Amino acid sequence: MRVHIQNPPPGDPFAFTLDQWAEAATRAGSIGADHDVSISATEAEFARAMTEAEALITDVDTLRRLPPRGATRLRLVSVTSAGLDTLAPYDWLPDGAVLLNNRGAHAVKAGEFAIMAVLMLASGMPAMVTAQRAERWEKRWGHALGGQRITIVGLGTLGGAAAMQAARFGMRVTGVRTEGGAHPHCERVIATADLDAMLPTTECLLLASPLTEATRGLIDRRRLLLLPRGAGLVNIGRGGLLDQDALCDLLEEGHLSGAVLDVFTPEPVPPGHRLWRTPNLVMSPHTSADDPRTYNPLSLDIFFDNLRALRDGRPLPNRFDTARGY
Amino acid sequence: MRVHIQNPPPGDPFAFTLDQWAEAATRAGSIGADHDVSISATEAEFARAMTEAEALITDVDTLRRLPPRGATRLRLVSVTSAGLDTLAPYDWLPDGAVLLNNRGAHAVKAGEFAIMAVLMLASGMPAMVTAQRAERWEKRWGHALGGQRITIVGLGTLGGAAAMQAARFGMRVTGVRTEGGAHPHCERVIATADLDAMLPTTECLLLASPLTEATRGLIDRRRLLLLPRGAGLVNIGRGGLLDQDALCDLLEEGHLSGAVLDVFTPEPVPPGHRLWRTPNLVMSPHTSADDPRTYNPLSLDIFFDNLRALRDGRPLPNRFDTARGY
Repeated sequence: MRVHIQNPPPGDPFAFTLDQWAEAATRAGSIGADHDVSISATEAEFARAMTEAEALITDVDTLRRLPPRGATRLRLVSVTSAGLDTLAPYDWLPDGAVLLNNRGAHAVKAGEFAIMAVLMLASGMPAMVTAQRAERWEKRWGHALGGQRITIVGLGTLGGAAAMQAARFGMRVTGVRTEGGAHPHCERVIATADLDAMLPTTECLLLASPLTEATRGLIDRRRLLLLPRGAGLVNIGRGGLLDQDALCDLLEEGHLSGAVLDVFTPEPVPPGHRLWRTPNLVMSPHTSADDPRTYNPLSLDIFFDNLRALRDGRPLPNRFDTARGY
Repeated sequence: MRVHIQNPPPGDPFAFTLDQWAEAATRAGSIGADHDVSISATEAEFARAMTEAEALITDVDTLRRLPPRGATRLRLVSVTSAGLDTLAPYDWLPDGAVLLNNRGAHAVKAGEFAIMAVLMLASGMPAMVTAQRAERWEKRWGHALGGQRITIVGLGTLGGAAAMQAARFGMRVTGVRTEGGAHPHCERVIATADLDAMLPTTECLLLASPLTEATRGLIDRRRLLLLPRGAGLVNIGRGGLLDQDALCDLLEEGHLSGAVLDVFTPEPVPPGHRLWRTPNLVMSPHTSADDPRTYNPLSLDIFFDNLRALRDGRPLPNRFDTARGY
């Protein structure tokens, strides 16, 4: 297959190398053999490659900058992100091309970030960071995780990895997804429609769902107020899941004891924004799920998994449903 | 046995209740029966109780304020802390009385704090907190823990719990203790004398040892400089293990990428102290190992374990060796 990899601008730690491609192709076995691959970071090389490429591998930001409109031979557009909401509307996708995400690549790093954030909330770390800014020595006692109740909204790669970690630490895990069901690391899984009933006994609320029309603004002021006083919140999904202003209000009032946010509206968060100074709030700049040491190899392994499914006539495991939004 | 519990001042979350005593006594079985127990928080009641008590259960701060000099019937002084270095010299201990600590009570909470701190360093969280203060959106990529090298100085309750958690996350764990040896959660254990050789390949250095004449100042500027550029440091042992000024210098220079400290010299850290403003440093106010929800029950269980050993003529498991200092 004629494969083109369009890299982010030079210096980005997530740029692909030919060595990474060669190693992943070797791991992939027969499906990794006999491809004609090119890698570039310039617009001119991209335009030239799009006249002949059957598969494009690139990142969300590059794709927004360089949508492959009119690349008539493209069959696969493989994006090195799980959430592709910022690529909507998807009218730039050439007819007959399938959009793939890299769902699965984020499991290990995101699960570790999630349990770190949950441990930070249980230790009172966001309040400690706020006290440190003010140079105040304030004893503040945390607690161990065993027996604590966590509710995880979204049970995809991120939420599933968070549930696995939380269960390992003895937490009582409730998962939330559109239709309910079961999950190996959850005591129970409820439907999104039943979320309100769960919130009053939730000590930690962790958001890990994609941003769709159904989830936008899901955690609004009313639902934040349903959480018990002293609850904590983690968001590793998308900023738009949450009413940020309500969150800031409730952190200032003390209804919530702390929050760890990795995703925001907008991103980047501009200087002077209220979020930067909200007490008991710790922010990471949308980096929770990515590990440069392992990210490209995992993304390429996922690409080859999908090539294998295509060859064998199976559904593509990472096909992104543009109508559903994940 | 005539047991007296002297509580910290009213309002302290670690004050014992008669209910906690009764529940622990029930858990303890036969050794929990037929004790005559009193609980107080005043100096007058303490003085009266000391004329007849055979066992005293109290905390370090109360004991420093109210040393039981001349309490001739005392056989056991059971302190609800593991490190009793601040009680030295021990000349206030009545002749024939044995000093007990609560080694073991801190394992769960301290292990969780330790792995939280290690995850924070791997995620770049201390630098993110520093960027947040400055209202700067700076992408900064962390990494997962698998395969990372951690060196843990001290393999008592705190260090052992940290090693267990680190091993669960797939880290390569080297333990350090006076004489070397083996530990179930360490790939290897080296002697303190061999520490220098280990530092250049240590990505995370975690301090969890007691403060003794042998460990005071162990991690000085020279040893911090032996760590590779970008290494991180956690201290949950004692502030005096570490040259704090050297640590601050090396965080400012960027030789170290981050630090999470729970213990300091002095405590409380005074306002205006350099530590509060050192970049890439996160501070918690000596709260890493204590969970008010479980601390008193665990401490009482340990007390009864020692009573059982005393009855059976076995060595007391929590006997604090005042000469050795732990």
